[in-house]
Amino acid sequence: MTNNRTGGLADVIAGQTGISTVGKLGRGLTYRGYSIHDLAANAAFEETAYLLIYGKLPNETELRLYRSKLAGLRALPDSLRVILERLPDTTHPMDVLRTGISALGAFEPEEGRTQADIADRLMACCGAILLYWHHYHTNGTRIDTEAGGDSIAGHFLHLLHGSRASELHEKAMDVSLTLYAEHEFNASTFAARVTASTLSDFYSAIATGIGTLRGPLHGGANEAAMELIDAFHNPDDAEHAILRMLASKQRIMGFGHRVYTVSDPRSDIIKEWSSRLSSDAGDMRLYVVSERIEQVMRQEKQLFANLDFYSASAYRFMGIPTKFFTPVFVLARLSGWSAHIMEQRAANRLIRPSASYSGPEPRSWLPIDQRT
Amino acid sequence: MTNNRTGGLADVIAGQTGISTVGKLGRGLTYRGYSIHDLAANAAFEETAYLLIYGKLPNETELRLYRSKLAGLRALPDSLRVILERLPDTTHPMDVLRTGISALGAFEPEEGRTQADIADRLMACCGAILLYWHHYHTNGTRIDTEAGGDSIAGHFLHLLHGSRASELHEKAMDVSLTLYAEHEFNASTFAARVTASTLSDFYSAIATGIGTLRGPLHGGANEAAMELIDAFHNPDDAEHAILRMLASKQRIMGFGHRVYTVSDPRSDIIKEWSSRLSSDAGDMRLYVVSERIEQVMRQEKQLFANLDFYSASAYRFMGIPTKFFTPVFVLARLSGWSAHIMEQRAANRLIRPSASYSGPEPRSWLPIDQRT
Ligand SMILES: CC(C)(COP(=O)(O)OP(=O)(O)OC[C@H]1O[C@@H](n2cnc3c(N)ncnc32)[C@H](O)[C@@H]1OP(=O)(O)O)[C@@H](O)C(=O)NCCC(=O)NCCS
Ligand SMILES: CC(C)(COP(=O)(O)OP(=O)(O)OC[C@H]1O[C@@H](n2cnc3c(N)ncnc32)[C@H](O)[C@@H]1OP(=O)(O)O)[C@@H](O)C(=O)NCCC(=O)NCCS
Repeated sequence: MTNNRTGGLADVIAGQTGISTVGKLGRGLTYRGYSIHDLAANAAFEETAYLLIYGKLPNETELRLYRSKLAGLRALPDSLRVILERLPDTTHPMDVLRTGISALGAFEPEEGRTQADIADRLMACCGAILLYWHHYHTNGTRIDTEAGGDSIAGHFLHLLHGSRASELHEKAMDVSLTLYAEHEFNASTFAARVTASTLSDFYSAIATGIGTLRGPLHGGANEAAMELIDAFHNPDDAEHAILRMLASKQRIMGFGHRVYTVSDPRSDIIKEWSSRLSSDAGDMRLYVVSERIEQVMRQEKQLFANLDFYSASAYRFMGIPTKFFTPVFVLARLSGWSAHIMEQRAANRLIRPSASYSGPEPRSWLPIDQRT
Repeated sequence: MTNNRTGGLADVIAGQTGISTVGKLGRGLTYRGYSIHDLAANAAFEETAYLLIYGKLPNETELRLYRSKLAGLRALPDSLRVILERLPDTTHPMDVLRTGISALGAFEPEEGRTQADIADRLMACCGAILLYWHHYHTNGTRIDTEAGGDSIAGHFLHLLHGSRASELHEKAMDVSLTLYAEHEFNASTFAARVTASTLSDFYSAIATGIGTLRGPLHGGANEAAMELIDAFHNPDDAEHAILRMLASKQRIMGFGHRVYTVSDPRSDIIKEWSSRLSSDAGDMRLYVVSERIEQVMRQEKQLFANLDFYSASAYRFMGIPTKFFTPVFVLARLSGWSAHIMEQRAANRLIRPSASYSGPEPRSWLPIDQRT
């Protein structure tokens, strides 16, 4: 048995990266040297994505051209629309993205395209893939995926709701995308790098990222956190339930982290937005319930909220259905995955670890008529 | 820069496995304790797959039932057929499989299904997905994917050629599937385990496996080897060309291995089959060219042929188009991936390594009007 404290490559250096730092002093986060606080306060998501993919902050002209480039990449190929129409309405939204982006690799293969162009295309049309499928199956409408504002955040909310989002919501969404954009060798990014390390194509590595993010120990945690928080009428109910869950050794989604030990620097930022959105909506229940859960987790387990915890209530106030929380994470993380695929390829070596063997000793062949 | 000799998690123990041993004494391979020589000589691929997935060799009744179970799982959902019809004829066959299996996860989600049932379904219909797409786009026919013999090898060759394969070809294919079935923490299996470690679903982990296998440093090597071998009229031409390629530091696909240092035990087995198939076809060119390349690589680089090298000519003699070589690898490796996903889940911890940072130092925010 792999020891629970030593398995999972915890603290094993699997390679080098120049893209971000996670957990220096147990808590910090920088993207290419810029602190997450500065980025969340000042950068639009498009600036953040540009920084990650192109390696520098864009100047005014570059940012303007980048926005218009992205806005021009939202149309879906006809055959991809047919495929999305064929995926059942019961499909897990992450399966829609995994399948849709995998199929896009068939329509727009990597040969002849730059990596950055593919990254931009994916960020531009990821929301379109999800929401085209969504509206087709819920309202029978074939939406125009090119509508919406010129930001990725605004475009997503516009396509989702069918009308322009409030400035507050668009800004909150934009900040959230920046917070979710990049996080060093997290499981999905690391898995995408393993895929890239065989010199496979860009879409394969991205499909790996999506499939890996889907799990509740990773990207799926924001949805699980929402279901938890939403189950409570008030903070006292929440407190009692969490204590019972901890007593029975259950994991509380949205808490803890492999690398951060003191706090997740992104949590306070999104918490502040969750508070603002709650006040704006005139409904503090989810927020006060969340705060109590956070308090109990700190007292009982010395565990802090990670980004997923307050993202849950923030997304709820923007009117995002819970099942789209992890897909929004994809929308953001496409930027980080892309930067890592490019970095892996630039100094590649096949990622192929060893295993320790715990199975049966060598044994001689057992002919079929002698088997039980 | 990650040092080329130390990167890629080479020799790093990333976990435990009871499924196979690779490279004990630099060369051995066992599946659950049975040597690859015994398996290749005695086991049908269905026995091997059963051993990997169910943990024991099947007795006669179990094997009979298993074969008929697999033969009953070859039909494709109508909507999946439509999706395959929509993927262009230019699609990379690995993209067909990645997309097709990803979509299957939407039609037949994991909830309510056992892991072993999903593994069996995938092995049973993987060839059907590929070849339905293939015949539709090359001949405009919608093939009946349930036709063909009762073995996976026979089914694949039957669907491909539209008629029953010779006994020799079916047997060679069957052995090849056993050889490709499982290989410890190779890149695609390891990546699939990373995906599984977030508690994502089975299909996501398999899609990761397919995308990772696609690269020429891994599963894609058999196709690259074929293109190389096929370019030479005779052994002398091959020798000169290989010497030139080595002088210019090119990699020769189908040689070398991360773990084996002395030899790949699977190579001699498939080499023997390649020789038999060549004699049977009355055409030794590819075989003698391959032998010379093997000899040159050993002399010049002390590098041995891996499984991919002689698999190339063997597949050619079975009439398999080169672009389907890596998909055949998928067909086989689905068994190993499935066993590893099950093993990972049974004693899970999130696989999330660390990175060493090589990027810019922390820097203060640069307002957009000050950027160049
Ligand atoms: C993120 C996470 C997977 C990191 O896991 P890890 O580094 O492998 O840590 P471990 O699973 O070894 O946990 C260490 C201990 O803390 C406990 N723990 C960790 N996270 C916990 C949580 N969210 N709730 C309750 N207990 C938790 C574990 O039960 C374990 O306790 P033990 O020593 O008594 O067994 C883990 O904290 C977790 O599952 N969190 C919930 C899911 C989540 O929010 N994921 C998003 C991360 S951004
Ligand atoms: C399989 C493989 C990726 C393992 O790679 P690895 O453990 O990372 O080994 P490295 O890439 O560090 O190679 C070690 C040395 O051997 C050389 N080498 C390895 N495989 C080689 C090959 N197939 N042809 C020529 N040289 C090769 C490397 O160039 C390197 O030489 P250097 O020290 O002068 O730079 C590698 O052998 C390879 O690329 N083989 C060809 C692809 C292939 O057949 N893959 C299928 C594997 S089953």
